[in-house]
Amino acid sequence: MTPNIPGRLEKLRGKLAETELDGIIISQPENRYYLSNFLGTAGYLLITRSEAVLATDFRYTEQANEQATAYRVVQIVGSAFDWFLQLIGELRINRLGFEAGHVTFSFHRRLSEAVSIAQSPLQLLPTDGLVESIRAVKEPEEIELIAKAAQIADSAMDYVRGIIRAGMTEKGVAWAIEKFMREQGSQSLPFEAIVASGPNAALPHHRPTERSFGQGEPVVIDIGAKVGGYCSDLTRTLRVGAPVHGDDLFNRVYDTVIRAQQAAAGMIFEGMSGGEADGLARRVIDDAGYSHAFGHSLGHGVGLAEHEQPRLGPNSSDALVSNMVFTVEPGIYLPGWGGVRIEDLVVMENGRVRTLSKTEK
Amino acid sequence: MTPNIPGRLEKLRGKLAETELDGIIISQPENRYYLSNFLGTAGYLLITRSEAVLATDFRYTEQANEQATAYRVVQIVGSAFDWFLQLIGELRINRLGFEAGHVTFSFHRRLSEAVSIAQSPLQLLPTDGLVESIRAVKEPEEIELIAKAAQIADSAMDYVRGIIRAGMTEKGVAWAIEKFMREQGSQSLPFEAIVASGPNAALPHHRPTERSFGQGEPVVIDIGAKVGGYCSDLTRTLRVGAPVHGDDLFNRVYDTVIRAQQAAAGMIFEGMSGGEADGLARRVIDDAGYSHAFGHSLGHGVGLAEHEQPRLGPNSSDALVSNMVFTVEPGIYLPGWGGVRIEDLVVMENGRVRTLSKTEK
Repeated sequence: MTPNIPGRLEKLRGKLAETELDGIIISQPENRYYLSNFLGTAGYLLITRSEAVLATDFRYTEQANEQATAYRVVQIVGSAFDWFLQLIGELRINRLGFEAGHVTFSFHRRLSEAVSIAQSPLQLLPTDGLVESIRAVKEPEEIELIAKAAQIADSAMDYVRGIIRAGMTEKGVAWAIEKFMREQGSQSLPFEAIVASGPNAALPHHRPTERSFGQGEPVVIDIGAKVGGYCSDLTRTLRVGAPVHGDDLFNRVYDTVIRAQQAAAGMIFEGMSGGEADGLARRVIDDAGYSHAFGHSLGHGVGLAEHEQPRLGPNSSDALVSNMVFTVEPGIYLPGWGGVRIEDLVVMENGRVRTLSKTEK
Repeated sequence: MTPNIPGRLEKLRGKLAETELDGIIISQPENRYYLSNFLGTAGYLLITRSEAVLATDFRYTEQANEQATAYRVVQIVGSAFDWFLQLIGELRINRLGFEAGHVTFSFHRRLSEAVSIAQSPLQLLPTDGLVESIRAVKEPEEIELIAKAAQIADSAMDYVRGIIRAGMTEKGVAWAIEKFMREQGSQSLPFEAIVASGPNAALPHHRPTERSFGQGEPVVIDIGAKVGGYCSDLTRTLRVGAPVHGDDLFNRVYDTVIRAQQAAAGMIFEGMSGGEADGLARRVIDDAGYSHAFGHSLGHGVGLAEHEQPRLGPNSSDALVSNMVFTVEPGIYLPGWGGVRIEDLVVMENGRVRTLSKTEK
């Protein structure tokens, strides 16, 4: 599937008009791919109201011509910024945006030097999240790829549910999951599988260790696959074997988290803010007396990046609109004991969210 | 093994004195780990002539205290830059360096705003490659980890040599290599294995495709493992089965590349520049009439990063000194036909290079 690059450029040009920019230079890798279909790992897009140029070096020129058919490809030769000098001369633009959250201080300095050498009237203006806000709303083909990646993560979770037992190690299970997903067609994983057992489950970003699972312990498993560049994200908390007699903490915590997860997934509607969505789940957890145990946000957008817009968390004003894909993942973490997190990937459709994750809870 | 953090801080403080800085803020991930032993994925080091502070958020505070024992750990709370405001008040420093090639324009702007809010006389000064130049010279324990990673790549190459045959695909072989190295103890691979067959072998940075190998074709295989955070890097060019009758191009090209590789590895001596080292191999290739076919540099440093200082390439003035670890990897690429690259990992010892890669050529 070749993405609809002209459509994406049109949306970007709408944003340029809104922010009174004559053009923008794009260097962030996912944004570069999203706007051009160019898969190389080095290069810059320079997009104006009427032109689209891709500058890359000799290693990628041929590939750029094949993939980025909506672009004029310019080969970077000689000093790294000659191409930029030449383009700003040709394109005659005055207000050029750059990606302030991605461009390094050094890169910005070199762009500024080029402008000053050229004695150009060009102004370099910082922009923030311009392409990311377009990427947050998915096209049907993007949702399809994300759904495929979600399906691979579902299958991996079903597989783990079947094999998990006391004595297995976090690292062993993480590698079994990775192997399974790769052999089911996932590209290199978007993030290392989180397998956090017992007390380690109290750490939301735990990295797998040699620790082996004890009977009745909670194990938080947070995994993602990648298909055609698009990520998925899924968390389940499993219990290893039967509960230890008299221990009902797991059930109480699990029950609270699942109610919070279902409350949010069931009540989020189109137009709500990320902050309001977060509140739906947080209220359930607060009411159960675990208000200090849910230390992260409810969710985040997923697409070419594992974490992207929108943000669902306290104070987020991001509006949740149609065709956004994001996670709904409340958790409760009790230091010393462990934790429970349940995460589904959802898409906003017809005013409500549809759940892409199918594995049981 | 816990790295010698006090020794590394002493080296950094020597650099601070040389560049007349009172302190430096470190945000680049490998530099942060190298100087602190902190494995978390978010946090900043603020190192002055006499103090070492690590600022990180609630997710990592406990871990930071355990791992970064040479540091005072400060928890980032509230607005993201309050910790910075508070520290510059406490530490009373005037000339603070930052990593200009890593820090984003936005981050730098927020630091500047904090300085101006604090009405501090502090000056923010760009630095370039300061910690990287220290990292380029390895400690014995670092060389040991790199040698282990090199050994895993060697074993994987021996394994591939045993199984390769016509009809296998680039993607299939890349995944077989990845699985093999992970099961031999490698962490997540530092880079996706390059498996480039036939005409694809003419592209130095080819990504594996579904293309299947033809009889007698060259296949460039470029792989790396990771052990304890340290990378290896190894390339061999294999021929699939027996040569097709009458085709002696493979042998001619292969022979030239191996002579170039051996000339460089045999003649590089301590104190030589990266440019001079590159010239040793380039001369052999030029003399054989392939001067336009060796389009990349001879090599690069390897350590916590897959590509780091020193650079061995035309015009590089980087001095090659004792205990540097780097690659020696000439190649010849002929569009339409394919290519040959041979890469060993070496360490500078007793004035000459010792080869860490052991698999046959």
